[in-house]
Amino acid sequence: MSEVVARLREELGERVTTDVAERETVRADKSGHRAAGLPLAVVHAASVDDVQATLRIAHASGTPVVVRGAGTGLAGGANTGSGEISLSLRAMDAIVDVRPDDLLAVVEPGILNADLNAALAAHGLWWAPDPASRDISTVGGNIATGAGGLLCAKYGVVRDAVLALDVVLADGRLISVGHRSVKGVTGYDLTALMIGSEGTLGVVVGATLKLRRLVPGVTRTLTATFPDVRAAAVASAAVTAAGIQPSIMELMDAVSLAAAHALLGLPPPQPGAAQLTVQTDGIAAADEQAAIATVLADAGGRVRLAVDDVEAAQLWTVRRSMHPAMERLGTTLIEDVSVPRSALPAMFDEIARIEQAYGLTIPTVCHAGDGNLHPNFVFDGTEVPDVVWEAAGELFRAALALGGTLTGEHGIGVLKRRWLADELGADQEELQRGIKALFDPAGILNPGKVFAPRP
Amino acid sequence: MSEVVARLREELGERVTTDVAERETVRADKSGHRAAGLPLAVVHAASVDDVQATLRIAHASGTPVVVRGAGTGLAGGANTGSGEISLSLRAMDAIVDVRPDDLLAVVEPGILNADLNAALAAHGLWWAPDPASRDISTVGGNIATGAGGLLCAKYGVVRDAVLALDVVLADGRLISVGHRSVKGVTGYDLTALMIGSEGTLGVVVGATLKLRRLVPGVTRTLTATFPDVRAAAVASAAVTAAGIQPSIMELMDAVSLAAAHALLGLPPPQPGAAQLTVQTDGIAAADEQAAIATVLADAGGRVRLAVDDVEAAQLWTVRRSMHPAMERLGTTLIEDVSVPRSALPAMFDEIARIEQAYGLTIPTVCHAGDGNLHPNFVFDGTEVPDVVWEAAGELFRAALALGGTLTGEHGIGVLKRRWLADELGADQEELQRGIKALFDPAGILNPGKVFAPRP
Repeated sequence: MSEVVARLREELGERVTTDVAERETVRADKSGHRAAGLPLAVVHAASVDDVQATLRIAHASGTPVVVRGAGTGLAGGANTGSGEISLSLRAMDAIVDVRPDDLLAVVEPGILNADLNAALAAHGLWWAPDPASRDISTVGGNIATGAGGLLCAKYGVVRDAVLALDVVLADGRLISVGHRSVKGVTGYDLTALMIGSEGTLGVVVGATLKLRRLVPGVTRTLTATFPDVRAAAVASAAVTAAGIQPSIMELMDAVSLAAAHALLGLPPPQPGAAQLTVQTDGIAAADEQAAIATVLADAGGRVRLAVDDVEAAQLWTVRRSMHPAMERLGTTLIEDVSVPRSALPAMFDEIARIEQAYGLTIPTVCHAGDGNLHPNFVFDGTEVPDVVWEAAGELFRAALALGGTLTGEHGIGVLKRRWLADELGADQEELQRGIKALFDPAGILNPGKVFAPRP
Repeated sequence: MSEVVARLREELGERVTTDVAERETVRADKSGHRAAGLPLAVVHAASVDDVQATLRIAHASGTPVVVRGAGTGLAGGANTGSGEISLSLRAMDAIVDVRPDDLLAVVEPGILNADLNAALAAHGLWWAPDPASRDISTVGGNIATGAGGLLCAKYGVVRDAVLALDVVLADGRLISVGHRSVKGVTGYDLTALMIGSEGTLGVVVGATLKLRRLVPGVTRTLTATFPDVRAAAVASAAVTAAGIQPSIMELMDAVSLAAAHALLGLPPPQPGAAQLTVQTDGIAAADEQAAIATVLADAGGRVRLAVDDVEAAQLWTVRRSMHPAMERLGTTLIEDVSVPRSALPAMFDEIARIEQAYGLTIPTVCHAGDGNLHPNFVFDGTEVPDVVWEAAGELFRAALALGGTLTGEHGIGVLKRRWLADELGADQEELQRGIKALFDPAGILNPGKVFAPRP
């Protein structure tokens, strides 16, 4: 047992494990990629004190620490390898306070998004961020990645839904950033700086969340089928341009749609057909559904309105089957580019061009309401082939050229770090590395994530 | 003429002025306070190139630069003194692009908030931040201070309404932070870091703003009068707790209300009476108005519903007369604390306690919808008396103890810097100073603002 593990054991006892199976598990997240080598240990923190003790020991010994929630990331951000400590916050899952009068909740980071929302519903409240992983991902992980989801165009992203954070710094000191009030501009916005920092600046051990009242009324769902993906993209952009705000608008391209139909045993769609699935909510849900149906029919869509919640659930099952359907085709690298909504047709043109140029099929689903696309690269075996990385690089450059970003909601982690400077530019990347060095001078917080090691 | 002014003249010609009256003007903002001594020059930048040239010259010579919009700040953030360059961006006021399909606009920083919104209205759009100064303050100034306003509880603050920024760094380099897409989590959120940084990290020379569709329907207004300010505060908190979302909810305490009535020649209110003025908007405006009226009547308020827009405008005139009414009483130091909405009654208790303890009258208006209070210290002469600073310090500590902040929307500037560490704590203040040093190693960007000089 290494000296650092012995020190951890001394302070944290049974909350430190060196069990090989556990250490094996924390090498990977849901991206399917894994870190090289086996971590030193996994610390299951039960309190802020535990986190501070772990960081003090790690800092003194120069040992890297990789913070982990539920391990559902898709960019390798929580992958922990040789010589590193995996610091799990999953057991810190308490709801400390819910204040309906102030529309806020104070929580520990390890609580699952869905568990929090189940508890909030009893108060007529919800926390709006809704990543597709919400049933299995933690609030702390949502904050660390700056998670998005399906409802973002109407209800915002994580950055819009956090008021304050308690953060343990690299050397174990605890600071509080933000405030419980709606407004506040004292000093720099370190709350926003921590959100999406992927464990590289500090460890979020507590969060004050901005809540919403549950939306009154029922939801309405429709689908619209188009002869090809470009037509569907044009139609989705037309909905936004028409000034109607769906709560969710999802797009499936032809390969995705066909694969989902096959998985569910549904009749195959028309060859080439792409589909939009759209939800409206609130007291005007029915009127908005009708307005959207008109826009989509005018754009050449074959529209189907769900008559009730049962039919709506069936329509959503098709969209939800995307990932299991992809898994049947091979190993998947799920990308995450985002573009302005008007650029969606152009981005689908680029994907078609890249498919052609690299001889690949890139099934794509898209949060069309906000312009966030998830192109899936499917391949055999466990290693991403070079041709896929080359095509992904082309995809990122196309998104940037359209005014977008290489990651809308998954983060950079380890899988996208080589393209970071393409988006930030050299001067901004240098500033961001400077911030990293300021918060973590010893370089122990999730090293090698977000920023590639210097050549 | 100093060498640095000669260099500026060489590059920028007539856009550099040393006119004494202009240099005198930029010593002050709307806080009524002014910097010591006369600045070197005022640069009227007309382009990004002008800003870059100014910063290159200032950086090379170690000359401080104070960025200025319309000079409407209330914390002394743009006050420029001896040995400093005032860099005015007011002439950079172009609207570069409006994209209704992507709900965004690209603007130069010098455009007035109201001018932008007048132009956006033609597209059925608006930019939500609405500081009380919106007719006379610039978008760049709103960004630099992280401005708030009356509509924030329902429609958010500046931080929620900016997608991307072009920033000239201290040495004249230009970087772009953020993106045009709804989502994006590449690297750290430098867009949020720049917002509210009060000219200490860089110069915002372009902004991509997140827009909203104009709210359909009409607005409705009511007032409710209460026997004392505590009752009004309790009632306003009850509105939020009841789950109703007014677009605006303003509170005037007894002294404010009486002063506004006197200014307008209206009959004096009942002694001690405080008043809420509440606006609802959107398609449910009438229903929400009725619901709020019930809550306020139940809380002991005498409710008056405006029958039409003319009467509504009359009711709002009383609230709008606060500042002119205060000016008749003497010189004013306008404070800006913010607390969670449930803590409003407790905060008014604290104000009453501080009035008693220091023998002062502190007329207070409050954005009760979001918990942001503006206590006014009124005094004779131009210098803030020590007793007022002491009472203000007590006020800040009370707001912090209630989970709030010492500035909701005005910023720290020079007037509140001595209390910064009380809110941030020593460790966080040190990190924030580290960020400042990283972005501005030569210390030329608005020195002495936000952070007090080291003792």
